[in-house]
Amino acid sequence: MPEVTIDREELMEEGLSKILGCLEEKKYFVARDELLKFNNVDIAELLEEVTEEVGIQKTVILFRMLPKDVSVEVFAELPTDDRNRIVEIINDKEIEYIIQELDFDDKIDVLEELPANVVSKILERTPRSERKLINTFLNYPDNCAGTLMTPEYISLEKDWTVREALDHIKKEGMDAETIYTCYVKDSGRKLIGIVSLSTLVISDDDVRINDIMRTEFVHENVYEDQEKVASDFTKYGFLALPVVDNEFRLVGIITFDDILDIIEEETTEDIERMGGIIDFDDSDRDYLDTPVKQHVLNRLPWLVILMIAYIFTGMIISSFEGALSEVISLVTYMPMLMGTGGNTGSQAATLIIRGLATDEVEPSDFVRVMWKELRVGLSIGVLLSLLNFLRVVFLDGESVAIALTVCVAMICIVIFAKILGSMIPLIVKKAGADPALIANPAISSISDAVALSIYFVMAKIFLGL
Amino acid sequence: MPEVTIDREELMEEGLSKILGCLEEKKYFVARDELLKFNNVDIAELLEEVTEEVGIQKTVILFRMLPKDVSVEVFAELPTDDRNRIVEIINDKEIEYIIQELDFDDKIDVLEELPANVVSKILERTPRSERKLINTFLNYPDNCAGTLMTPEYISLEKDWTVREALDHIKKEGMDAETIYTCYVKDSGRKLIGIVSLSTLVISDDDVRINDIMRTEFVHENVYEDQEKVASDFTKYGFLALPVVDNEFRLVGIITFDDILDIIEEETTEDIERMGGIIDFDDSDRDYLDTPVKQHVLNRLPWLVILMIAYIFTGMIISSFEGALSEVISLVTYMPMLMGTGGNTGSQAATLIIRGLATDEVEPSDFVRVMWKELRVGLSIGVLLSLLNFLRVVFLDGESVAIALTVCVAMICIVIFAKILGSMIPLIVKKAGADPALIANPAISSISDAVALSIYFVMAKIFLGL
Repeated sequence: MPEVTIDREELMEEGLSKILGCLEEKKYFVARDELLKFNNVDIAELLEEVTEEVGIQKTVILFRMLPKDVSVEVFAELPTDDRNRIVEIINDKEIEYIIQELDFDDKIDVLEELPANVVSKILERTPRSERKLINTFLNYPDNCAGTLMTPEYISLEKDWTVREALDHIKKEGMDAETIYTCYVKDSGRKLIGIVSLSTLVISDDDVRINDIMRTEFVHENVYEDQEKVASDFTKYGFLALPVVDNEFRLVGIITFDDILDIIEEETTEDIERMGGIIDFDDSDRDYLDTPVKQHVLNRLPWLVILMIAYIFTGMIISSFEGALSEVISLVTYMPMLMGTGGNTGSQAATLIIRGLATDEVEPSDFVRVMWKELRVGLSIGVLLSLLNFLRVVFLDGESVAIALTVCVAMICIVIFAKILGSMIPLIVKKAGADPALIANPAISSISDAVALSIYFVMAKIFLGL
Repeated sequence: MPEVTIDREELMEEGLSKILGCLEEKKYFVARDELLKFNNVDIAELLEEVTEEVGIQKTVILFRMLPKDVSVEVFAELPTDDRNRIVEIINDKEIEYIIQELDFDDKIDVLEELPANVVSKILERTPRSERKLINTFLNYPDNCAGTLMTPEYISLEKDWTVREALDHIKKEGMDAETIYTCYVKDSGRKLIGIVSLSTLVISDDDVRINDIMRTEFVHENVYEDQEKVASDFTKYGFLALPVVDNEFRLVGIITFDDILDIIEEETTEDIERMGGIIDFDDSDRDYLDTPVKQHVLNRLPWLVILMIAYIFTGMIISSFEGALSEVISLVTYMPMLMGTGGNTGSQAATLIIRGLATDEVEPSDFVRVMWKELRVGLSIGVLLSLLNFLRVVFLDGESVAIALTVCVAMICIVIFAKILGSMIPLIVKKAGADPALIANPAISSISDAVALSIYFVMAKIFLGL
């Protein structure tokens, strides 16, 4: 593969080392000019790394030297921790300026994460009408469409011509993301149509909005879950979606750039839950910024649940202790059978959980999934058994009876685990809970106990214990 | 939470049952009109479900009755399997029409998945110049920026005024997604600047493009990996990114709507790999459409690798058989210690793998990650040990010596597993491989063997076996 012309990461690293060099020599203005060669997202990333290397104080000096409009945009891109630390250091006037200048949706994001006393100080000095709007937005339940939207959108009248609409847009002169779709409301503020900027630009000047607006469109309710909103964006590929209240009045819009963050966030949550981690911390901190105590708290519940399940596993083993001490070599294959059961079960669960998340699989596919996993389980079980037969008889030199115990148990365990692993997510989803949260611990504990029981039953049959 | 005004899913279900009803009564025109109440993405989904319910033949009848422009868009949205089955049934003229009318990037997508003989038949009848372009696009390596881009973008001259630019855009009248960012090239086709449509619309008519275009912009090389492209979109929140060749000539653009699909695809791959599934099937089929044989093939490698690892685990157990048969109750705690090691190790691995994917963690964070996991492991190990001490002594009524064996082993195993689980992904990433692919099997097998060894060493120490 040919080499890449310019590697952005290399550019960033060069930039960072230049900036750190300048800071060491106290050449703050040179450092600032170096920073300003990058875009706002990159500047935020560079400042984050500067903080890591030389502390927040020097970052704040640099931050204050940025042009006002840049500093506002960069502030919105910084991670919560850095934002809060900057707010602690800069003065109230500076904070107020930044908050005032932020786009409305960024403003809400920032306010949500700032310490309560800072927020109330800011709100005190906000004009009454805006304060009310901010409070409404701050009060939407977590993770709903309302918390993602911005009230800044372009409203057009259905009787306007395209020329009038374009003039109106030019006058409003709004932010890039929010301009690409325009909304038409009736006198009761109900949403009746949407027109994309591209339609306006390619239409003739004297065409009426009424004649080009689309009246069939996808929209979200303000209380809709953000995961559903994100999946609608992926499904339809829209730039923006209108958000309506229960009376179908337009209350805001959600733009695609905010959705990309939500998709990343929701995916992280799913992956962590599937990996046995429940994030009790709603501040969205990075791995390294999360304190040890929080890490322990997030990881402990699942381990404790399994620990309790192992009491039952232990009881099954105890009840079989006599037989085990008679044929101690049975112990050798115990971890393999239990482990394979768990692993093969979580393979099935992974596929179904992901399938449910991407709408490839639905709870109503119960029978089709079971039939598929039954056949997959049988095939895998038989193949692994053949391998194990060779191992037990030829490598370990055990009796054929022991080999049969292990192999027949293996087939049963794999089939059982595949069906368990695929059915639990479907049942959990049907019951309205999150399959990613419940499936894996449930599968691990149930399949362990069942694997042992199957193994011991086979031992009874083939070895007469 | 208040009820949602209109539920799109319910609408779709109603629509589907109406359509199925009409098909049963052979009222095809009514069924078509019902379909046309939905947007193209939804029509494709409805047709997919119609195929599932009553077979492809009736779907094709419906598909043929759609207005031509709708049928082209719907075709692009259908899953590969359905597309190929439709192509088998409809005649060459119809296929040719659809392929011709598709947007360039959809055309490439469709051609990539169609049977080779159909593709060559289509290419034969394509004009020479376009055939060349199509072949170039079809030949980009899988999963690189080149396969995602479209050559359909708006080119502006730097000397034009805004008015001239807007007139040019109106004349070209291109597809919605591709119009929002315009590109400025020099005489050698090198990319020198970008202007967003929103900037054009809010600028005065006589302003020169040269004065409003941005010359500092993010771009992708045509051979860049699609995962990197997707993460740039998430990071910067852009609508489109220009794609350049090694001479910095603009060869195409990637628009956000295609990226949403890539993000979903890449996430699915990561999640499946973390769940021990390697997708050897590059046709992107849904879970239910993937044949049993392919499912077995995708899941077997990991299980076989673990199976081989279990031979070593078995050897460790065998070498300790004497001691085990002396104190058979030691067997009771074996699955718990091994299981907890595996689970706690994969918790750490999950966090690090996801952190690497979202750039929260970097391989250079080695020491910080290890220090964090050491403390997390110690805390969790001690807490779980306390629980276990109570269980072993009071619930199971075993000796304190056995309890100490189990508890001290537990602490060591958890710490070891946390460090192993966090370090392996970092090492694998540093070596240039995919951590999601290698981490979990490696952790499972190593931590099993180490957990057993630690346990038996503790038994020697505390029980003098």
